[in-house]
Amino acid sequence: MTPIEGAEIGSVVVVGTGLIGTSVALALRERGVRVFLSDRDPAAVRLARGLGAGEEWTADRTVDLAVIAVPPQFVAQQLLELQKRETARVYTDVASVKVLPLTQAAQLGCDLSAFVAGHPLAGRERSGPAAARSDLFLGRPWAYCPTEVVSERALRTVVELIGMCGGNPVRVSAQEHDRAVAIVSHAPHVTAAAVAARLAEASETALGLSGQGVRDVTRIAASDPALWMGILSGNAIPVAEVIEAVVADLSAVARSLRSLAGDQSAMTDVTDLLSRGVRGTARIPGKHGGPARTYAVVQVLIGDRPGELARLVQAAGQTGVNIEDIRLEHASGLPLGAAELYVQPEAAAVLAEGLRERGWQVPT
Amino acid sequence: MTPIEGAEIGSVVVVGTGLIGTSVALALRERGVRVFLSDRDPAAVRLARGLGAGEEWTADRTVDLAVIAVPPQFVAQQLLELQKRETARVYTDVASVKVLPLTQAAQLGCDLSAFVAGHPLAGRERSGPAAARSDLFLGRPWAYCPTEVVSERALRTVVELIGMCGGNPVRVSAQEHDRAVAIVSHAPHVTAAAVAARLAEASETALGLSGQGVRDVTRIAASDPALWMGILSGNAIPVAEVIEAVVADLSAVARSLRSLAGDQSAMTDVTDLLSRGVRGTARIPGKHGGPARTYAVVQVLIGDRPGELARLVQAAGQTGVNIEDIRLEHASGLPLGAAELYVQPEAAAVLAEGLRERGWQVPT
Repeated sequence: MTPIEGAEIGSVVVVGTGLIGTSVALALRERGVRVFLSDRDPAAVRLARGLGAGEEWTADRTVDLAVIAVPPQFVAQQLLELQKRETARVYTDVASVKVLPLTQAAQLGCDLSAFVAGHPLAGRERSGPAAARSDLFLGRPWAYCPTEVVSERALRTVVELIGMCGGNPVRVSAQEHDRAVAIVSHAPHVTAAAVAARLAEASETALGLSGQGVRDVTRIAASDPALWMGILSGNAIPVAEVIEAVVADLSAVARSLRSLAGDQSAMTDVTDLLSRGVRGTARIPGKHGGPARTYAVVQVLIGDRPGELARLVQAAGQTGVNIEDIRLEHASGLPLGAAELYVQPEAAAVLAEGLRERGWQVPT
Repeated sequence: MTPIEGAEIGSVVVVGTGLIGTSVALALRERGVRVFLSDRDPAAVRLARGLGAGEEWTADRTVDLAVIAVPPQFVAQQLLELQKRETARVYTDVASVKVLPLTQAAQLGCDLSAFVAGHPLAGRERSGPAAARSDLFLGRPWAYCPTEVVSERALRTVVELIGMCGGNPVRVSAQEHDRAVAIVSHAPHVTAAAVAARLAEASETALGLSGQGVRDVTRIAASDPALWMGILSGNAIPVAEVIEAVVADLSAVARSLRSLAGDQSAMTDVTDLLSRGVRGTARIPGKHGGPARTYAVVQVLIGDRPGELARLVQAAGQTGVNIEDIRLEHASGLPLGAAELYVQPEAAAVLAEGLRERGWQVPT
């Protein structure tokens, strides 16, 4: 593919060829951009080059855009060094916190007219260039946080970058960004860890009574602690504020439960929290950025054999109903399970009936 | 099917024809047991009868077993009334807390030699007889909590009931049961609600940055508050204890984050919690009751069209690899997504290669 007519971005240096940096490089290469790669670790550059992400940076030119893809606490220093060498006309970063690098960049005297802080919301549970994908950002939110002094050109260039990567640009202030990710990502992570920590000390009997609920609540707590330490340190106060709100709610519930002596009025705190929880889950946006919606669930019994699921999904496809999501619920101890097919509510009856006609067990 | 030779259970009365009671009735009917149905709500009995769960109870005989399927706070009173009328030779219940009904039953002077408290771990997000399934308990843990005075016959009968329903009997003390479900079910539920409550007050911008993590953490918080109030009230102290441990961990993290002024040593609490969280998630038992194991994930790009998923899963089936689980990750804003196929680690390469050969985009 050739570069877009009239585009700002013909050449880019990616500084830091980890998961995000290399994925940006791969996406830009597919759009015909000339991409240079830089990393403190020569092996990471070699691997990214081997993946076709670009050529090695030799600091002998000025490119259109520098993408700084290093941990949050190193962004500002890196920006300063790149600007001193006149590396690029425009600069951005991809760190998952935004106030810290912007504050440090101002303190260091960086040129903020040429810098637009950014954050693609597209992490994976794996890291490093080998996990990179050119389509990592497709349709994902990509926050960008221009300051008041930003130049038109810098703004245009970074929005173009997001578009080239297939991301969905979301303009927010750095403060709002950091509060937002504290709520929807950082504090939920810590809270999941606190629930999972109880399992670390639980009896085998207790673990044997685990169901799908606790699995879902704790899944993200399996992520790399070192990676998360950097994120939490870089967004300390917003995360602390959300955690304190969680603590206040949980403390009120614990107090109510302790004071409960057959007195249901002690439980108004608990009812209140549970109801707010229901309202909160209903506000999470749905697929395709549209409003949140509730899918209908059609449960189907399946055996645990190769091809069983394929036959089911194929049968579902023959009914003409689109499957929005699938969950497999395995019956522990038996080679039997239930598949839960999530569909638009109006399509549930059609799917259930169609599957029954094709011989599947669909409990009513 | 005819009753098992030498079995204790030929006739049963189910008291309370909600989701669990009606599911027990349906399972027993499939084993040829004569089942009688009773509920304070005549409509619920009619519906259960219509589903083939049994016949209406007329209190004119003594059956082998009475299954008390009413909310926790009503179990003991119900047991007393049934025993006064010599309704059955053996009694059990299915409430999700166990100390409360046993304590109340002792206080009321019930005959505990004929009663074995039970709890099948098989809830659904829906309730009522219409949601009942005869296979609801297949392979699921079913806790039972005999007291010291229990008769051999009562014990044998209740274990037989669990077997007839396809459950996996787990013998625990009532105290241990209640502590266990506080850890793996009740406290995680309240904690998920506390995270979801933050979303109820979050900006649209914050919600727009939501990813899969916060969706998983908060999913169970969408459940019916009224149902959960009964459960939490009935297990108040064990749940309070677990929540207090969660609060202690979260408070320590919030303090560390607040005191952090570039001083990483303030963060040892946080590292410690994240690491304990990782260990905790690793202890959740895996499929088929075996040890927890980590599946490999193969990601495949798919379009959002009817039949697309069917074609993918069929192609996967042709590689001979068994799919353990599927997650669909939709790219918000675009009709494109990634399917994550969970497979045994040793099968991942075979699957990825086989799918590529069949023309699927499998990012490396």
